Amino acid sequence: MKKVQVSIVMGSKSDLEVVQETVNILKNFGVGYEVKVLSAHRTPQALVKHVEGLPKRGVKIVIAAAGMSAALAGCVAAHTVLPVIGIPVDTRTLTGLDSLLSTVQMPKGIPVACMSIGKSGAQNAGILACQILALQDNTLKKKMQQFKKDMAQAIKKIKVKL
Amino acid sequence: MKKVQVSIVMGSKSDLEVVQETVNILKNFGVGYEVKVLSAHRTPQALVKHVEGLPKRGVKIVIAAAGMSAALAGCVAAHTVLPVIGIPVDTRTLTGLDSLLSTVQMPKGIPVACMSIGKSGAQNAGILACQILALQDNTLKKKMQQFKKDMAQAIKKIKVKL
Amino acid sequence: MKKVQVSIVMGSKSDLEVVQETVNILKNFGVGYEVKVLSAHRTPQALVKHVEGLPKRGVKIVIAAAGMSAALAGCVAAHTVLPVIGIPVDTRTLTGLDSLLSTVQMPKGIPVACMSIGKSGAQNAGILACQILALQDNTLKKKMQQFKKDMAQAIKKIKVKL
Amino acid sequence: MKKVQVSIVMGSKSDLEVVQETVNILKNFGVGYEVKVLSAHRTPQALVKHVEGLPKRGVKIVIAAAGMSAALAGCVAAHTVLPVIGIPVDTRTLTGLDSLLSTVQMPKGIPVACMSIGKSGAQNAGILACQILALQDNTLKKKMQQFKKDMAQAIKKIKVKL
Amino acid sequence: MKKVQVSIVMGSKSDLEVVQETVNILKNFGVGYEVKVLSAHRTPQALVKHVEGLPKRGVKIVIAAAGMSAALAGCVAAHTVLPVIGIPVDTRTLTGLDSLLSTVQMPKGIPVACMSIGKSGAQNAGILACQILALQDNTLKKKMQQFKKDMAQAIKKIKVKL
Amino acid sequence: MKKVQVSIVMGSKSDLEVVQETVNILKNFGVGYEVKVLSAHRTPQALVKHVEGLPKRGVKIVIAAAGMSAALAGCVAAHTVLPVIGIPVDTRTLTGLDSLLSTVQMPKGIPVACMSIGKSGAQNAGILACQILALQDNTLKKKMQQFKKDMAQAIKKIKVKL
Amino acid sequence: MKKVQVSIVMGSKSDLEVVQETVNILKNFGVGYEVKVLSAHRTPQALVKHVEGLPKRGVKIVIAAAGMSAALAGCVAAHTVLPVIGIPVDTRTLTGLDSLLSTVQMPKGIPVACMSIGKSGAQNAGILACQILALQDNTLKKKMQQFKKDMAQAIKKIKVKL
Amino acid sequence: MKKVQVSIVMGSKSDLEVVQETVNILKNFGVGYEVKVLSAHRTPQALVKHVEGLPKRGVKIVIAAAGMSAALAGCVAAHTVLPVIGIPVDTRTLTGLDSLLSTVQMPKGIPVACMSIGKSGAQNAGILACQILALQDNTLKKKMQQFKKDMAQAIKKIKVKL
Repeated sequence: MKKVQVSIVMGSKSDLEVVQETVNILKNFGVGYEVKVLSAHRTPQALVKHVEGLPKRGVKIVIAAAGMSAALAGCVAAHTVLPVIGIPVDTRTLTGLDSLLSTVQMPKGIPVACMSIGKSGAQNAGILACQILALQDNTLKKKMQQFKKDMAQAIKKIKVKL
Repeated sequence: MKKVQVSIVMGSKSDLEVVQETVNILKNFGVGYEVKVLSAHRTPQALVKHVEGLPKRGVKIVIAAAGMSAALAGCVAAHTVLPVIGIPVDTRTLTGLDSLLSTVQMPKGIPVACMSIGKSGAQNAGILACQILALQDNTLKKKMQQFKKDMAQAIKKIKVKL
Repeated sequence: MKKVQVSIVMGSKSDLEVVQETVNILKNFGVGYEVKVLSAHRTPQALVKHVEGLPKRGVKIVIAAAGMSAALAGCVAAHTVLPVIGIPVDTRTLTGLDSLLSTVQMPKGIPVACMSIGKSGAQNAGILACQILALQDNTLKKKMQQFKKDMAQAIKKIKVKL
Repeated sequence: MKKVQVSIVMGSKSDLEVVQETVNILKNFGVGYEVKVLSAHRTPQALVKHVEGLPKRGVKIVIAAAGMSAALAGCVAAHTVLPVIGIPVDTRTLTGLDSLLSTVQMPKGIPVACMSIGKSGAQNAGILACQILALQDNTLKKKMQQFKKDMAQAIKKIKVKL
Repeated sequence: MKKVQVSIVMGSKSDLEVVQETVNILKNFGVGYEVKVLSAHRTPQALVKHVEGLPKRGVKIVIAAAGMSAALAGCVAAHTVLPVIGIPVDTRTLTGLDSLLSTVQMPKGIPVACMSIGKSGAQNAGILACQILALQDNTLKKKMQQFKKDMAQAIKKIKVKL
Repeated sequence: MKKVQVSIVMGSKSDLEVVQETVNILKNFGVGYEVKVLSAHRTPQALVKHVEGLPKRGVKIVIAAAGMSAALAGCVAAHTVLPVIGIPVDTRTLTGLDSLLSTVQMPKGIPVACMSIGKSGAQNAGILACQILALQDNTLKKKMQQFKKDMAQAIKKIKVKL
Repeated sequence: MKKVQVSIVMGSKSDLEVVQETVNILKNFGVGYEVKVLSAHRTPQALVKHVEGLPKRGVKIVIAAAGMSAALAGCVAAHTVLPVIGIPVDTRTLTGLDSLLSTVQMPKGIPVACMSIGKSGAQNAGILACQILALQDNTLKKKMQQFKKDMAQAIKKIKVKL
Repeated sequence: MKKVQVSIVMGSKSDLEVVQETVNILKNFGVGYEVKVLSAHRTPQALVKHVEGLPKRGVKIVIAAAGMSAALAGCVAAHTVLPVIGIPVDTRTLTGLDSLLSTVQMPKGIPVACMSIGKSGAQNAGILACQILALQDNTLKKKMQQFKKDMAQAIKKIKVKL
């Protein structure tokens, strides 16, 4: 089993479908990860304990997915100097605008790297984590460059019939 | 000096002008209060310690004012079963919509009593706190009834010349 | 039958599905409640009569659920010094933004404790009512503390397989 | 002094600058009017009493101007079968979106004729009142037709130098 | 067949489902009406011709329903001094915000009485038209007062089981 | 004097400051233009007459600038098959969102080429007009290519001292 | 096979359903076109190469359809002096507001002719392209005038039964 | 002079005031940086050349600041596998919503780490860059931990007099 480099936390079990996209990317790139359900509002102590324990375990990046008043990513960032990536999960009401603004509008001093709303953002969270890890991992960097080429190639192969 | 029944926390010193409205109300009603600058993002431990110490000190209500990704009220509510009142402070960009949605859109299980944006909301936070305290304080209830009458009277006295 | 401590009013029968969440909480906590359909716009006199009669009956808190131009909670608050909790019900058009702004943006002097849009907000309205009542009811306070612990425990037990 | 045909109510003295535009129109068209400060939230009884007394006094149209959670026009409409015109007054936060949605998003059964936000809407409220009155007043109809022609003429006379 | 007092225009055949609500009201109140599909953008000349011919036919009120960049009500108002009521029809994208702002944000000089988005607004357009006509029709006024009472009665009869 | 190829219409004299940006571009590119104040709502007949007369005068493109419920560009497009460019003028309330949605959300069949809000959009309207005219005017095309190069050059020359 | 005058690019295969509307129009008007899947973000070099090659091939207009952070139309416009028409494709979250603002809010110097969101905009993109080409093609101009007449005629023929 | 590890690009000279906040942070942390004015729309080739040259020069992170249809960060990300941080610069119209959505709503495959709007976001961009670099630089990590402590300390020292 791989050493965990990326810790993914999500605010509720219902965020699972979105977070799956992040997991798929990390698996593809062979990056060790873990997934926890931890809520800024409902399990604040457990969340803090989890976040404070990350450096000792060698975890390098935290990805946090939450919806509505999405305080999760910001609360994680409050307790660590590791880079924190936030995924705003779309909600039925307000079409995700609440999740987005809560995640992205962080005050001075505590950055959260906010992704786009929902599954696109979840996939991109995984890719950004790999890009950061690739700064000190040449194998990962080459995989990332190949991923980018494959993505372009896949688009170029599309034939449109209209 | 009055026993503190209402603890006001604000996320940044710049929220002072708004919170002054809350203080004015509590002073007028003779309710003991305190004001602290504590940030969900920049002083999370101090905030938790403060909130967890409130019941022993006999504090009954928390009022939290913050702007942008306003996690403050929600983070307070995560650590107490006392009623928590949130004041969304208006920001220059997005005209306060971010503060409002971050404060009001709390997930199931952790309520925040959200007020209107800015000074109106700050004044109303003070009034709501008094209304809650008045449930077990007849003197306060009578003052509140008088306040409501005076407010109506003041409006009725306005003479409009157009 | 329990003495009514919380009076729930809703603007239309279609708000029932949302208000059910409030009722479930109050039942679980053993708090006496009643549910009425009363509209600020269609039955204004009946609404006022209902609200003005609450104190004599020993009711302590009003919860008001309404959608669109959701004047209900504000109109209730206009006629009482009891704490008023507002639930913005989501609408098909505008995804609940109209209900939210109408409920939360109360002017100086007349607070409404606004919850999040829809079912989350309805559940939280029930919890906030219990938190307020718990200020003078130790049994209720202990139940609330246990509720909070159970909620955290339920999240911690979730096992994620990805 | 002219018989009052249009009763203007505004929620706060600060709405005066906006309502002045309505008054100017009604004066120009020679329509009798009155202006009252009455709040749906702060003077609800006085408001209802005022609205219920209008038909006996021969008033035909009500114009209501309010900001934020602008329940005023809707509450007037709840108590009368006279046509009610609403003016959403712009607020510093949210740039008037709250006032607009609260005024316009009326539920089935209780119409409010909503105007545009602020001074344009206030002027148009006066014009619409005159258009309604002109249905049974030929002199007023002719004045209205002339007003429309003059407005067009004024625009056609503009010389642009660029 | 009844003399047409209210002319309803809609911008597209797809607005029919919404406009049906207006028709139901006018039928119930026994007010003569007509329904035309006429577009500000696709049949501008036919629209102008229709609007300019209304006074001679004794039509007193125009109701215009349209979606997206909903210029219809404003363009009708540009060509008549009759009162014009606008219904913003909800669109799939932007959830009706475009229709609402296009209909309500009329510039100085040309009022449109804007209703709420979609079916509620359509029903209210019919009621407002009746309220305006009732200013000079006592039978209609009494029907309107009865309608209001029946509406309140219907709500009071609702029994909620929760 | 140059033959008019681009006719600029604006809904109100207050749009002048914005339209000046369009004029500056057309002057720089040596394209003949005219500027008229004509309103979809206040001078509809004059507007139609103006638009219908354009082809005979050899005008090729119409640019329409308006604010609020900005029906101008759409109404111009309703009466011509010439390309119509719309400039949403920013308003004090709603920060230009109303002007933008009214201008851009045209229904099927009647396109308006919508620019960005305010002065940027006004400048771009002039450039787009030149780009369209350049399709049949090689001198203009070369000027446009040079303009693009100069713009890039100007940016490259900027020295930042921080 | 027709000479390509209009090059349509779309950011993702999922935009096909929307772009089909553009294609239908260009086919009906007999204008030569091509459709390519090219992304500003995933195939930037291929996109630039495609855009830079257009003038030599005699292409006159580019239509770009994209969703979310819809940089496509702007990036096309950055590399050409041909007129660029943008179609904001509606997204599940945010109901298309992100696509619209990204496409329309172009800075000074680089215009994009933005259409309405989704299928209406796609159809209009095709019509605007034909209107521009019709400036130098009398047959196309006549077809366009006939199209406009047919559209009006189709609306006039609608019989409404209510 | 320090080796450049962070390359800051901004879309226009007017973004300077915002970017200054980023520079201040990088200076304080002793991280080598450079600042360039490069536009996705006005200098696309120069931008690509700049971005493609970064890896050879040992640059590790790109920060991109832009307003309106803020394609800059996304276009940078399209050409590199380095982590890209985006700062949405607030605009006068739409209060920064356009810049935010354009920067954050990136499609699958090309992440941008979006910060909050304006100066807060600019400061946070600098801090996030340092957090990423600190993953392989212990001195920087310790400075970051100290920075976090100092920030908390500064807040705790605030004395509020109300």
